[in-house]
Amino acid sequence: MKNLRSKNIIVVETHKVRLDKMETCFDSLSVEEPLEIKIASAAEDFAPQTIAVTMRTPGHDEELAVGFLFAESIIQSFVQVESVAQSKCNGVVVSLKPGVNPELTKLERHSFVSSSCGVCGKKSVESVLSRTEIDTSSDSFDVEVAVFATMSRSLRLMQSDFDTTGGIHASALFTTEGRLLDLREDVGRHNALDKLIGSMLMRNCLPQSEAILFLSGRASFELVQKAVNAGIRMVASVGAPSSLAVQLASDAGITLVGFVREDRFNIYCGEERIRTIRSECSQVQSAC
Amino acid sequence: MKNLRSKNIIVVETHKVRLDKMETCFDSLSVEEPLEIKIASAAEDFAPQTIAVTMRTPGHDEELAVGFLFAESIIQSFVQVESVAQSKCNGVVVSLKPGVNPELTKLERHSFVSSSCGVCGKKSVESVLSRTEIDTSSDSFDVEVAVFATMSRSLRLMQSDFDTTGGIHASALFTTEGRLLDLREDVGRHNALDKLIGSMLMRNCLPQSEAILFLSGRASFELVQKAVNAGIRMVASVGAPSSLAVQLASDAGITLVGFVREDRFNIYCGEERIRTIRSECSQVQSAC
Repeated sequence: MKNLRSKNIIVVETHKVRLDKMETCFDSLSVEEPLEIKIASAAEDFAPQTIAVTMRTPGHDEELAVGFLFAESIIQSFVQVESVAQSKCNGVVVSLKPGVNPELTKLERHSFVSSSCGVCGKKSVESVLSRTEIDTSSDSFDVEVAVFATMSRSLRLMQSDFDTTGGIHASALFTTEGRLLDLREDVGRHNALDKLIGSMLMRNCLPQSEAILFLSGRASFELVQKAVNAGIRMVASVGAPSSLAVQLASDAGITLVGFVREDRFNIYCGEERIRTIRSECSQVQSAC
Repeated sequence: MKNLRSKNIIVVETHKVRLDKMETCFDSLSVEEPLEIKIASAAEDFAPQTIAVTMRTPGHDEELAVGFLFAESIIQSFVQVESVAQSKCNGVVVSLKPGVNPELTKLERHSFVSSSCGVCGKKSVESVLSRTEIDTSSDSFDVEVAVFATMSRSLRLMQSDFDTTGGIHASALFTTEGRLLDLREDVGRHNALDKLIGSMLMRNCLPQSEAILFLSGRASFELVQKAVNAGIRMVASVGAPSSLAVQLASDAGITLVGFVREDRFNIYCGEERIRTIRSECSQVQSAC
């Protein structure tokens, strides 16, 4: 593979076939490399250990490691972390403060394939909800329909690597007015979201209870679970949601929107937070 | 969530927003549920244990479990398996024959996030190649350009659930003439491929050295790795490949094709197996 590497893009020689013609030219690929995530103790309370090796796009590795540990409930806040150090070759070591002993017994093998603790959808949802304090008492935010078109345009403009490679996912946070707060990209959609949430955790910006999480792909159970952990109350995705993603969002009081394009989207639950719709609904009610 | 469940689709009430208008209607979602994969010994050589919990679309669960164990190098052939039994609630137990003792020490936690054993891309590729015997001596197959258009049309026609939900991945095997051999669907693209390869393994149909693997999404390192394990020599995907997917395919002698549409595709490596191109290349050479 002849290539020219620049940031997270590799340019390779490729053969483009159009109808029955072929031409040799260059194409851009998103970089994918493994990252080993280790935890250690600043007071040597326990031996350093590898928690995961994930295939990711290099960049924001410390945020990815911290976001991953948060998603797996190994840490609950960044106060528990003494330091985050990148090692030379695709590794990050997160040192925990003296006395912080994560429940390593929780680290059952299967918890790294899925963070769900149950073996049925209902138990998976219950398990997420039982670990999270959901405060809906101060829930006063709503979002205008037009904001979704704004976010859709912004994501396309901001997602620089996607334009070039067509193969990278993005997770972004927007204000309720549609202003971009932050964005992370990765070949893995779980990684993109772990990076974004890790970044917020490291800056002491969680929970994000009045922001909109925008996903470039589909909305699965595990992505909605990460949103629940981060206190996010509105998730919008370019792709389709799964059944269990809708179930979890509904039970956690999250507004879940799918198939977002500039002129349309579908609301799966929590429609009371979408402004125009609420007004229309009340108009219909008063007409009745 | 009011719903009407049919097979692997749930129909839910949703609010569709088009420009500034909203209407309540019904939408179909792909079902996502956890599956617990356990291994046991028919001779009680070791205690039954949970190997993984994966979020999947129900159906073909035995194949998924077998395909997953094969991908993780826990089993090398179906001869090692005594029985595969589905338990009541989202579980599959694979019982191994007496005397078959998988190297459970290999089952390091991180191997379930990534099957790569190294912490850099090069090591990940080397690790896959060292575990696989690649026989290119009898490699005489090639594929006509037009076959890619045929596969693209077939996948769209066959992928019934995608039309309805827009949210499910497919993995399919085709002959070199573009005839569909088999297809599996799942909300997770890894699961769709594990189901397909598990099905082939259970029918003693591996290696598939003269078939084309067609993926509905992007081609990542881990998907190409599964193809290498199954002896597949041509992988085509609707989406983009990652850098490490191309590197692995190139080193393993696999033809990797991306962005497949009815009238075009890109070849990243192994172009000598695509017929028209080879003829054109030789024409150009003779013209020089």
